[in-house]
Amino acid sequence: MPPKKTILRDAAPYLPELTLDCVILSFHEDRLKVLLLRWKGTQEWSLPGGPIQRNEAVDAAANRILKERTGLDDIFLQQFHVFGEVERYNREEIRHKLKHLIDPDKWYERAVSVGYYALVDYTKVTPTPDAYTEQCAWWDVQHTPALLFDHNHIIHVARQALRTQLSWQPIGYNLLPEQFTLPELQRLYEAILGKTLDPRNFQRKMLSLGILERLAERRRGGAHKSPYLYRFKKEQYELKLKEGNLFFT
Amino acid sequence: MPPKKTILRDAAPYLPELTLDCVILSFHEDRLKVLLLRWKGTQEWSLPGGPIQRNEAVDAAANRILKERTGLDDIFLQQFHVFGEVERYNREEIRHKLKHLIDPDKWYERAVSVGYYALVDYTKVTPTPDAYTEQCAWWDVQHTPALLFDHNHIIHVARQALRTQLSWQPIGYNLLPEQFTLPELQRLYEAILGKTLDPRNFQRKMLSLGILERLAERRRGGAHKSPYLYRFKKEQYELKLKEGNLFFT
Repeated sequence: MPPKKTILRDAAPYLPELTLDCVILSFHEDRLKVLLLRWKGTQEWSLPGGPIQRNEAVDAAANRILKERTGLDDIFLQQFHVFGEVERYNREEIRHKLKHLIDPDKWYERAVSVGYYALVDYTKVTPTPDAYTEQCAWWDVQHTPALLFDHNHIIHVARQALRTQLSWQPIGYNLLPEQFTLPELQRLYEAILGKTLDPRNFQRKMLSLGILERLAERRRGGAHKSPYLYRFKKEQYELKLKEGNLFFT
Repeated sequence: MPPKKTILRDAAPYLPELTLDCVILSFHEDRLKVLLLRWKGTQEWSLPGGPIQRNEAVDAAANRILKERTGLDDIFLQQFHVFGEVERYNREEIRHKLKHLIDPDKWYERAVSVGYYALVDYTKVTPTPDAYTEQCAWWDVQHTPALLFDHNHIIHVARQALRTQLSWQPIGYNLLPEQFTLPELQRLYEAILGKTLDPRNFQRKMLSLGILERLAERRRGGAHKSPYLYRFKKEQYELKLKEGNLFFT
């Protein structure tokens, strides 16, 4: 029996059976945030994503979707996993929930999804819904609702990959303001790792990477003694990104 | 204009426009080796790979291909990159080189490839060609011939990913014999990183992970003083694999 046609296959300019899902993350008020979309006429949320144009590289499609949802170019973007299970989610349930938006005979075919995560500056994003959705908003990554499709799972895997990335690349350039204190940097790392770190060990390790420049100024106004401000040394930071290994340097 | 049909699209049980490429690596005589296939009636080599069955998870397809080419089950297998460029290689050239094997009007469509690498025990592999190829053999990863498709590039990206992996996971369980010396382990790491490491730093870092058990015996017969034999503590090794971060532990 030939497979049923899908909405993607009907849409001739797109690759059939391949989609993208984007876990767009930012750091705001010491919390890791994820950008979600609410589908028209529902209380159902999902990740941004979509199909890949026939004449478009997969990475270019991810950049396009990110630009459309955030307004940003040149985002730090990382492929992290291919979601290739045959039954990724309950299609019957999706068909029912979105029947007012999508021809119920479609959305019925298998799609393999390439997962990307992006790290963006919270203050620079203009959240923008797509053709199927009416709201685009930040959610605390630890308190997302039950999402459509397998998107809670995708966020879970993205967070694991991001934790892994902390051992091979510095992170922070796209997530923190230009000047920050070591405690602020530590809170970002703790939010990603999902655990608290010993401040002295953290500072020793971060400083050993040679990517931080201490400024003359201190952060004023905190409850504790004023900590120094730092910024990333762009060149060394880029070098570490390229080396791709912080353990065996 | 509708796209031309491809060999994959004609083969109804497979997903169109999605393939796998497998970089199967082993460690033998202090060298990193990669398993390559020679196409029938040619001197042209490529990586193992192939399409994904319609009712098969992408990871399951990778395991199937690995089993077919090596005879091994339960291989350490890692998705590392999606090769999603529109023009991944010179299709005209491939069409010409393989015209005796493949209908020249086919192989003309875009395919996105999911790259996997596998780490296997050299001594346990039975290299086995597929339907299009007549030889399956190990090559020194630093001295591969010019390969078909974009497979030299895929090997390059796999090696980068493997270097990265050294900073978030221990490696060696599938590549070394059960008992090994620290210099032997170091030579594996050096082969992957593509550079020499300071022995004292290497030993300090590796021992700090708590995954190595020193045995009572020493390696006899070398030119130097006999080094101790070690083996991996399976349970701690697995734990480190799961943690996925060696830098911020």
